[in-house]
Amino acid sequence: MRYMVGIDLGGTNIVAGLVNEQYELVHKVKQPTEVAQGSDYVLSKMAKMVDELLEMADLTRQDLIAVGVGCPGIVDPIQGIAVFASNLKWNNIEVSRILGEKIGAPVFIDNDVRMYVFGEAMSGAGKGADVVHGVTIGTGLAAATVVHGELYYGSKFMAGELGHVVIEGEKTPCGCGLKGCLETVVSATGIVRQAREALEAGRESILREAFEAGELSAAHVSMAYDEGDALAQEILDYTGKVLGKGLAYSITLYSPDVVVIGGGSALAGDRILDSTRKTLTEMVYSGYMNNVTLKIGELIDDGGVIGSAAFAKSRVEKMEAVSAK
Amino acid sequence: MRYMVGIDLGGTNIVAGLVNEQYELVHKVKQPTEVAQGSDYVLSKMAKMVDELLEMADLTRQDLIAVGVGCPGIVDPIQGIAVFASNLKWNNIEVSRILGEKIGAPVFIDNDVRMYVFGEAMSGAGKGADVVHGVTIGTGLAAATVVHGELYYGSKFMAGELGHVVIEGEKTPCGCGLKGCLETVVSATGIVRQAREALEAGRESILREAFEAGELSAAHVSMAYDEGDALAQEILDYTGKVLGKGLAYSITLYSPDVVVIGGGSALAGDRILDSTRKTLTEMVYSGYMNNVTLKIGELIDDGGVIGSAAFAKSRVEKMEAVSAK
Repeated sequence: MRYMVGIDLGGTNIVAGLVNEQYELVHKVKQPTEVAQGSDYVLSKMAKMVDELLEMADLTRQDLIAVGVGCPGIVDPIQGIAVFASNLKWNNIEVSRILGEKIGAPVFIDNDVRMYVFGEAMSGAGKGADVVHGVTIGTGLAAATVVHGELYYGSKFMAGELGHVVIEGEKTPCGCGLKGCLETVVSATGIVRQAREALEAGRESILREAFEAGELSAAHVSMAYDEGDALAQEILDYTGKVLGKGLAYSITLYSPDVVVIGGGSALAGDRILDSTRKTLTEMVYSGYMNNVTLKIGELIDDGGVIGSAAFAKSRVEKMEAVSAK
Repeated sequence: MRYMVGIDLGGTNIVAGLVNEQYELVHKVKQPTEVAQGSDYVLSKMAKMVDELLEMADLTRQDLIAVGVGCPGIVDPIQGIAVFASNLKWNNIEVSRILGEKIGAPVFIDNDVRMYVFGEAMSGAGKGADVVHGVTIGTGLAAATVVHGELYYGSKFMAGELGHVVIEGEKTPCGCGLKGCLETVVSATGIVRQAREALEAGRESILREAFEAGELSAAHVSMAYDEGDALAQEILDYTGKVLGKGLAYSITLYSPDVVVIGGGSALAGDRILDSTRKTLTEMVYSGYMNNVTLKIGELIDDGGVIGSAAFAKSRVEKMEAVSAK
């Protein structure tokens, strides 16, 4: 049995997992990232976590096929460079080269959302499907697409920022410079904004207490929804509808077999997906709809780790296939 | 020098061209399709056209690498089957097998729009670009995307029906079963519909004469635009804006380097593309916009033939690469 290590690198924590070739998570370790210590410190810590995982399983570096790292921000997966990650304060860090030298095994990197969706495609809700489109809903909204086992990159590894498709009628300025982007509605931030605006306009809701205490979160809106609060239901229905509009574009253009919704579970599930499904039937040609299944992600917590490991394995297999020619 | 034949199979005419490996059209022949004679008759005629082209260039079948056929409707390019083409009255015709046997050379088929966009990507407005998204505007609107020399198919070879993305605020029923599809606005049919509705509502325009004579066409609207007619300008501005909305989704999701606009030239050009460009700046994140060029197709008339020939060549090269392993 050979193994991979998948590393989910975040601004707060690093989670690393030993994964076998059946994409099963064997061991997992977690450490604070300590961004302030600089990239070399963080990469050395990641190398130590790899050793720790091998030790836990009584393995040596020879048992390790490769390491995959899911990085936040803009990543060049071909060069193995973390191009820009604001929450790590990283600019053009050669992760694959530096970490590869520390570990003595090939290191492959990609954007964290692409890694998560790759994991769902290989071993989660999209397993066995030819084309898998995955969306993660958290502070923002991001997406990636896996086509016959390969991530779709487009030009400059930028394709698929579904969160920045502009929704007609929406006017909220987005961090990207546009107005009314999908993620200004469909995200934890977007849900809280909708609630805040309605409460400021005087709407009645059980959310007012949390709002006035300055504590309003998307989780409060979900709880209020479950208690039958009309405002919360309106907000999550509308959020689901806007998600449906975005997915209508994705489904028509990518034609996936499976759409996986991942990210913060409080926002997903039938609270928003009922109105998403209704919108899809109005906005997507039946030829596509008859052929696509909308699913909740199966790897939520370990998706980044398993996806990074699966990505590393697929890169090694690709290199082996090329060198066998 | 080796050659390909590209065949553009339409409901009215068959156009076949002898194309060299630099994608230059050496000879071209045209014949009526005669759909009523049945598929075997049409395929035999195509085989004769291939012989005619070889004879014109004093070549034999040994000089021919392969034949590519761009078919209307739904095509399975892997099986080589024309699955459904309403204007040919064809259902599940094994074009690659039958025509291949008649010609004695490999025959590859795909949908006609995909062939045209493949041609633009290999040898036209998208030459040298990594990712090319092409849109044809005619009676309807269709699109295809070429990614590193390969067509993007999605599941069941259906991806990318940009003409059937629903545009908010539009309500016109579409042949696909939805309402307000992009092609109900951005197409010759859509332009005539917009003009007809405005004239029926009493709008003044120099288009009224052609309308009352029952002769109104998209070409009339273009001519009226050029003469400064306010209604025609409004219609083509709006048409361009709606095209911009659709392309905003394509550009965000596919992240192309080049977008090629092909099809009926009367509709394209700056008459509609000025407002398309304006809409794109409002609806597409600058990271994509800085990286994409909007171009008019360069192969308009011979695009289907050259694209089909280029596609056949790429399939043969792919097969040679696989068998060399």
